[in-house]
Amino acid sequence: MIRVGILGATGAVGQRFVQLLDGHPYFRVTALAASERSAGKPYRDAAHWTLDTPMPEIVAGMEVQTCEPPLDCDFVFSGLDSSVAGEVEAAFARVGYPVISNAKNYRMHPDVPLLIPEVNPDHTKLIERQRWNEEADDLDARGYIVTNPNCSAVGLVCALKPLHDAFGIGAMHVVTMQALSGAGYPGVASLDAVANVVPYIGGEEPKLGEEPGKLLGTLTENGIEPEAILTSATCTRVPVVDGHMEAVSVQFNDHWEMEEVVEALRSFTSPIDALNLPSAPSPLIRVFDEDAYPQPRRHVHLGGGMQVSVGRLRECELLDVKFIVLSHNTIRGAAGGAILNAELLRAQGYLNPRGERLGVM
Amino acid sequence: MIRVGILGATGAVGQRFVQLLDGHPYFRVTALAASERSAGKPYRDAAHWTLDTPMPEIVAGMEVQTCEPPLDCDFVFSGLDSSVAGEVEAAFARVGYPVISNAKNYRMHPDVPLLIPEVNPDHTKLIERQRWNEEADDLDARGYIVTNPNCSAVGLVCALKPLHDAFGIGAMHVVTMQALSGAGYPGVASLDAVANVVPYIGGEEPKLGEEPGKLLGTLTENGIEPEAILTSATCTRVPVVDGHMEAVSVQFNDHWEMEEVVEALRSFTSPIDALNLPSAPSPLIRVFDEDAYPQPRRHVHLGGGMQVSVGRLRECELLDVKFIVLSHNTIRGAAGGAILNAELLRAQGYLNPRGERLGVM
Amino acid sequence: MIRVGILGATGAVGQRFVQLLDGHPYFRVTALAASERSAGKPYRDAAHWTLDTPMPEIVAGMEVQTCEPPLDCDFVFSGLDSSVAGEVEAAFARVGYPVISNAKNYRMHPDVPLLIPEVNPDHTKLIERQRWNEEADDLDARGYIVTNPNCSAVGLVCALKPLHDAFGIGAMHVVTMQALSGAGYPGVASLDAVANVVPYIGGEEPKLGEEPGKLLGTLTENGIEPEAILTSATCTRVPVVDGHMEAVSVQFNDHWEMEEVVEALRSFTSPIDALNLPSAPSPLIRVFDEDAYPQPRRHVHLGGGMQVSVGRLRECELLDVKFIVLSHNTIRGAAGGAILNAELLRAQGYLNPRGERLGVM
Amino acid sequence: MIRVGILGATGAVGQRFVQLLDGHPYFRVTALAASERSAGKPYRDAAHWTLDTPMPEIVAGMEVQTCEPPLDCDFVFSGLDSSVAGEVEAAFARVGYPVISNAKNYRMHPDVPLLIPEVNPDHTKLIERQRWNEEADDLDARGYIVTNPNCSAVGLVCALKPLHDAFGIGAMHVVTMQALSGAGYPGVASLDAVANVVPYIGGEEPKLGEEPGKLLGTLTENGIEPEAILTSATCTRVPVVDGHMEAVSVQFNDHWEMEEVVEALRSFTSPIDALNLPSAPSPLIRVFDEDAYPQPRRHVHLGGGMQVSVGRLRECELLDVKFIVLSHNTIRGAAGGAILNAELLRAQGYLNPRGERLGVM
Repeated sequence: MIRVGILGATGAVGQRFVQLLDGHPYFRVTALAASERSAGKPYRDAAHWTLDTPMPEIVAGMEVQTCEPPLDCDFVFSGLDSSVAGEVEAAFARVGYPVISNAKNYRMHPDVPLLIPEVNPDHTKLIERQRWNEEADDLDARGYIVTNPNCSAVGLVCALKPLHDAFGIGAMHVVTMQALSGAGYPGVASLDAVANVVPYIGGEEPKLGEEPGKLLGTLTENGIEPEAILTSATCTRVPVVDGHMEAVSVQFNDHWEMEEVVEALRSFTSPIDALNLPSAPSPLIRVFDEDAYPQPRRHVHLGGGMQVSVGRLRECELLDVKFIVLSHNTIRGAAGGAILNAELLRAQGYLNPRGERLGVM
Repeated sequence: MIRVGILGATGAVGQRFVQLLDGHPYFRVTALAASERSAGKPYRDAAHWTLDTPMPEIVAGMEVQTCEPPLDCDFVFSGLDSSVAGEVEAAFARVGYPVISNAKNYRMHPDVPLLIPEVNPDHTKLIERQRWNEEADDLDARGYIVTNPNCSAVGLVCALKPLHDAFGIGAMHVVTMQALSGAGYPGVASLDAVANVVPYIGGEEPKLGEEPGKLLGTLTENGIEPEAILTSATCTRVPVVDGHMEAVSVQFNDHWEMEEVVEALRSFTSPIDALNLPSAPSPLIRVFDEDAYPQPRRHVHLGGGMQVSVGRLRECELLDVKFIVLSHNTIRGAAGGAILNAELLRAQGYLNPRGERLGVM
Repeated sequence: MIRVGILGATGAVGQRFVQLLDGHPYFRVTALAASERSAGKPYRDAAHWTLDTPMPEIVAGMEVQTCEPPLDCDFVFSGLDSSVAGEVEAAFARVGYPVISNAKNYRMHPDVPLLIPEVNPDHTKLIERQRWNEEADDLDARGYIVTNPNCSAVGLVCALKPLHDAFGIGAMHVVTMQALSGAGYPGVASLDAVANVVPYIGGEEPKLGEEPGKLLGTLTENGIEPEAILTSATCTRVPVVDGHMEAVSVQFNDHWEMEEVVEALRSFTSPIDALNLPSAPSPLIRVFDEDAYPQPRRHVHLGGGMQVSVGRLRECELLDVKFIVLSHNTIRGAAGGAILNAELLRAQGYLNPRGERLGVM
Repeated sequence: MIRVGILGATGAVGQRFVQLLDGHPYFRVTALAASERSAGKPYRDAAHWTLDTPMPEIVAGMEVQTCEPPLDCDFVFSGLDSSVAGEVEAAFARVGYPVISNAKNYRMHPDVPLLIPEVNPDHTKLIERQRWNEEADDLDARGYIVTNPNCSAVGLVCALKPLHDAFGIGAMHVVTMQALSGAGYPGVASLDAVANVVPYIGGEEPKLGEEPGKLLGTLTENGIEPEAILTSATCTRVPVVDGHMEAVSVQFNDHWEMEEVVEALRSFTSPIDALNLPSAPSPLIRVFDEDAYPQPRRHVHLGGGMQVSVGRLRECELLDVKFIVLSHNTIRGAAGGAILNAELLRAQGYLNPRGERLGVM
């Protein structure tokens, strides 16, 4: 078993890490870290547990520590808020920890993989370009940071991947209807949410403009060559608990036929299928024929919250093809995605019990 | 006072007619008509009243009749379901009644005005082309049908009008987030609505494809010359009670600057402003600067539900400009819009007490 | 016109004061006060306006001041949080201002009226016992504090009043289903609210235990003799925007018949009916015969949010009679109730333009 | 494996049966029956599947039959609507099928067990009194009917059981806040549900008056001697998807202390614990200390939807003790409860592959 620490363990994403790692075949939670306010308390007292399964017994009594190295673990997941993630994650990387982060701070850093295992598993090679501590020469001794995309980009890019492979995506128009849990806890006030839509989410639209290009980009000797995709995004918040839905229109660079588009999505097999990673859904994409599907409340849990649902595939009068995509924003789009990232890194040999690497500490 | 009959008086739209006509300065409800099942009962027993103001006393005891002429009134509003509206409305028009309809049946009929008074008040001249009864030569004796657009088209076209006047709209991309009341009562099942989004509304997307072109079209000797607007629409249902929100991107035919676009919306004065019609909001369009506005629950009631809210005006990376538009689907988009249509028709001399016209009956 | 200041003007209750006082026939807002953070800003910038009508133009540009006397007004409404209301309200009373408060701090103070005009208008006489400033002998020069009850007690006691007058209430069992707006803004997190019920509201149940007794109590030479009503309360939060609903069972001291109970509620005329106060609904209580009524979304706005709805009147198998009561928690239960209190105080001669009294300042 | 038929397989309860029986260790679905309208279609076309897991592959292609014997199965679950359940269930019992029913028709029949395995497992002995077909003498050849209680009674009685055993319950006051799924599909209209509470559920309150007495009653030679529990119930519908919450006050016959009450609930072990039935939760009751818990969205899934949550245990000012109880209405309160009933009947020898009994057909 590889020992795991969770940074930001008491927050919304941190709780998802705790929940999803309960009983994980590779990873065991051995350290929980959060803000000064929580430090020193048992997790059950420090965390206002908001998930719909009970807090795992194994962590309930664990004492929460501050977010400083060292922690008793082989690597850390970070569910930290971006206001603190930048410094804390770098501090852990500098002393040799792999940091699998959900925060936005390093997503667009040229040497940091922005990773969806089914989409760009080769991008992890960027790790070898990272130098958080100049004195740590040995790759095994060096810490690194790997990130997963914004929750509204993940499902979208999973659906784009087979289409991009087949036809090349040149432009897209996206309108999101995002779930409340995407804003964390307490997050959106109920008076803003109940029977209402808020047509704006701060900072979200630019992320949809830049992350897909990096995710679908090509690994070169000089880093990632991003794909040029002209993107228009409007992000809204709807009164849904979990599950970001997006109305997407795409324009292709190459010739396409509608049947080919449907087939590309239906028959997509991801490059990591052969690895049989525990959190990887199979297949990645579920295509619905029913007009009224997918729906967040009914389909967000498919594949343990890791599958991406696509529906309403049809021609777009303006661009080429339009469709609906749905994915679980706090599982596939946050903690679950980060765990799958860790599973891939382990399979690729980047993540080991620290006894097997030369730790710098 | 002009005496009004309401066809489909017990349904969701019919109830709105009853509510909004209570205390109206021109129109007085004198006849209520509905299906056989309701006929013969007092309105209070026939209608499952679902609005948030009490049923007006004046109609509560009125006996509901069947939807057949004659009715004791000078003209009729129709809130009928499209499954029956076609025949019933024609039957009333044939015997000389003006029919101000909310149903979709005759919206695209070449001789029937599809009317938003602030947008195309001159289209009412089409009335003179209608011949429901060949024997009724005299215009005053002839019945006619006037329709209002689909509830998702109304707010959209109100926002497009100033932009079309200024820059010419060549194409648009629309994603709607529509309220539950748009489906009538009982309409959407609560298990499909609560904490959920349904990414499809039967028949809605084609209406957004064809109605704006007619509404923004030009009256010629041969009828309406529709405007060619290439339109891509995706229509979804969100758990909101009243108020259709739409994320709109438009492409202009002419040169534009962002400030000009904002100014066109802010300074728009409608061609009917001088008429001071009782249900006309002033101004037609309210432009919000706040990123998070407009919101259905907070802004749908502006201008008595007749004002159209626009927000998030900004450049579109793909087309030219994008924005959010919100309007009340059962007031502006249905009963209130039809009442405003009747107010315009009265101002134009098309609607009079039948004593002043030569009735055919 | 009497000039009004609003303490806590930017908060949820403060905004309701601003909204409801717009166009009031007696009162004109001349001062807005809030926390240091808001002071110095125009109201439009200081307040995150959350209501569904636009912010009144007249206050939008008014500069917000701190909550310290003097303010340019004849009396103040207080929508302050209880954490600060105690000191601030006393400070205003000491220098001669009447304080019409919505805060809980002085509700159970023996010399402070806990007032529902339709229920205990004579309790205002307690004002004469208040001595916030020993040097201010003249009643006209003295400040005082008058409070309205907790939002969950108001509707309940309005419904109890006719029953108590007729049969004497000895005990009651209350389960509330309270609206989100009762917790202010941001208040309840949407993740706690959407598709959920929270079976607890901090501090609410004890208030239902003590306030009804004082409200229904008798004014004596020594103050209020409270009514002894044995009360069991459970308070829950449901995903409703406005409107507290309560399932109430009562036990009577005297003989009763079911028809008499219904008649007592239906025919109740309040002691202030003759005063024709602008905010007083008529009648106070609306009794529904339909099993499924009243409902918060449909009936909370009756009487401008000041009427109290009662339904499902029937015998209780354990106590005597049970029923449902519904009232608007931020209008009848907060700002609207306080404004009605001020209207009564004016009618009773306790509230005047300060030019007509001997101000101490 | 015992072969199972499902009556009413396309409805809301029927779908839950299908979902919960997927992969069941004892039971395998071999027949699906529904109304004439569905008969002859494959299940995937006949059922408008509304659950949040995919339809099990094994039933998707199965042809739906009409609700008439014979069906190819050893016994039937009935999720039929009460309008047809009476006749259909009797028809199956008459030809030798055990019928495990969720319908209300036979619940209060003196010879039909109203069964919660953890509460009254001995009541199954009533089966031996049933004579649906006079010619079928042999118990093994005879059909019978076993019912589970109304969804609002199940959680309540599970919580009452330990208290009744310890202190004897003499009276209770119950106010329910019931989930939308309790009304089936399409069930409650969304316009009645969203941001609203409906203070009435037809027929529900009388069931809470009579079913607990039978469930907690004593099996005698003459059938069940019901427990006399004076009950006052108010049933309301709240905008929650799954999970009936109830605010309960109880009066005891015997001496009690608060700690004893808490301990009785915490330490309760059900009489069937030793049987290790697959659907039985362990423990039956989860007691929460946190004031704000249990909550439907967060806790309804505990124990696979079969556990009953209790919170806010405290003294009642009127009766003796009050608390909140929550249970899953379509799992514990319907299909899951019926499956647990079948598991108990199998363990007791009442349910066998028909090859091992003398079938009458």
